[in-house]
Amino acid sequence: MSDNPAVHLGPDQREDLADAVRRGGGRLVELADAEAVVWAGGASTFPDGLPESVRWVQLPSAGIESWIEAGTIDESRTWTSAVGAYSDVVAEHAVALLLAGVRGIVGSARATRWLPDEVGPPQSTLKGATVAIVGAGGIGRAMVPALTALGAEVVAVTRRGLPVEGAVDTLPADRVSEVFDRADHVIVAAPATSETKALVGADELAAIGARGWLVNIARGSLVDTDALVEALQDGTLGGAALDVTDPEPLPDGHPLWTAPNVLITPHVANPAHLQGGALADRVEDNVRRFAAGEDLEGVVDLSRGY
Amino acid sequence: MSDNPAVHLGPDQREDLADAVRRGGGRLVELADAEAVVWAGGASTFPDGLPESVRWVQLPSAGIESWIEAGTIDESRTWTSAVGAYSDVVAEHAVALLLAGVRGIVGSARATRWLPDEVGPPQSTLKGATVAIVGAGGIGRAMVPALTALGAEVVAVTRRGLPVEGAVDTLPADRVSEVFDRADHVIVAAPATSETKALVGADELAAIGARGWLVNIARGSLVDTDALVEALQDGTLGGAALDVTDPEPLPDGHPLWTAPNVLITPHVANPAHLQGGALADRVEDNVRRFAAGEDLEGVVDLSRGY
Repeated sequence: MSDNPAVHLGPDQREDLADAVRRGGGRLVELADAEAVVWAGGASTFPDGLPESVRWVQLPSAGIESWIEAGTIDESRTWTSAVGAYSDVVAEHAVALLLAGVRGIVGSARATRWLPDEVGPPQSTLKGATVAIVGAGGIGRAMVPALTALGAEVVAVTRRGLPVEGAVDTLPADRVSEVFDRADHVIVAAPATSETKALVGADELAAIGARGWLVNIARGSLVDTDALVEALQDGTLGGAALDVTDPEPLPDGHPLWTAPNVLITPHVANPAHLQGGALADRVEDNVRRFAAGEDLEGVVDLSRGY
Repeated sequence: MSDNPAVHLGPDQREDLADAVRRGGGRLVELADAEAVVWAGGASTFPDGLPESVRWVQLPSAGIESWIEAGTIDESRTWTSAVGAYSDVVAEHAVALLLAGVRGIVGSARATRWLPDEVGPPQSTLKGATVAIVGAGGIGRAMVPALTALGAEVVAVTRRGLPVEGAVDTLPADRVSEVFDRADHVIVAAPATSETKALVGADELAAIGARGWLVNIARGSLVDTDALVEALQDGTLGGAALDVTDPEPLPDGHPLWTAPNVLITPHVANPAHLQGGALADRVEDNVRRFAAGEDLEGVVDLSRGY
């Protein structure tokens, strides 16, 4: 606990983050005098050999693979990532993708004539629909309020199946296969691991069905792309809205580019220019917590790797 | 009040509506024996000279202009329209249009290559944005929960400015000009009247601004189309997502069809195939209310014309 903690901001003196440190009750100091470091750059420029006085480091990204690979993160102090800080922005993109699919916006956006009967498959509505969120971590949970406000029922899948607020049901990961049949639409938001590779294949796509939309805002590897192309061609899946693809970037001429019921946004669910505000909010909150001796948000657990 | 009201269903014996009448506590009878009529057809086929025993007629549409013109609606009994029954479906479309604009989905839907930096204007987010709903009647009000769940602040405009639940502020219609400056994005949901004709012109579009989106799910006449084309060309408005246009249908070759930041859905916010369920819900509810002697939903006031 430190009433007015000494915080080093690097590598640059970003105005928004300097303000956030001050709003959180901190004062900006040189690295040698710092109790805490707020780092807004990459792993490659991170200072070697932090002073022992540094008890906490705030990293700027939600994923910390590059920091682990670089060996930056040690066990002698607390490290926090920005995990969760960007959840709302990514969740909004997922809801936007699902609505664009369900409401026939993909076909309309491509039309250059007034063709009410030819702009795609019949529209549906989320009102009364069941939406599965596969991987209801911070991002997945952040989708629930908007989906339920639109009248959808949410079924969540999490690692252990502990209840997700606002969901009518939460299943553990080992029962994920059940939700593809049960849901009208499926949003993939799970981390990319060896267990989630090609989690959504031909059987899962067929189970979602000819009126259903698949949304992927996680990683391309979670969906079997060849199976997806086939399901769309055969009409066993209604449509797909993807912010991530496999391979990524999706190559020119790939059949998904011209499929009628496919929407691809080029990995822009969390665009850099929208991250500044979210990181500043997190920095302010964590500096305030640090000053008050409270638990910090986004503490890294090296044994879990995030 | 009538415990088990005698309801005539016409012109066809639609199964979903027959079930709704029964679920509401009614029994189906011939017209001559009816206390109430549920009419699922147009004005032209409506029976001439209803029996005096008919105390209530449920019409299938939200707007009743055609019934007023046909002289069907008399003062000797209660008439109800389906006003409000379809609000959620239309409101969902408005939210879908706004998100498609804000999240860069219009450009992405048209892209046939992975072009993260070229798919349109910089994305923004509804989180922390101010969204004005101009005309917060049943449809406008139905948008508020989803918009606030996404973190937007809603400013509403209604005829008299009485508070709208969930909005941070509600202005009366004679102060509508204030909201275009105040809001980041504007959704037009007001009825088409002589007072709302070209309500959104060059000044209002410039006030919404270069990052803002205009959404119109009301009637095309509320927006000055020529001023809109000009504002988009000059970049004084960020983009427009329109379910209705003026003229409508928008003619082939119109500049809006090929403007980069314009999304046009061809008046499909309330598609016929999604109306059945909503009408059945309204019929069930109103039959139950009729049986219980309660106020009916959507009572027509001939003096107001709706």
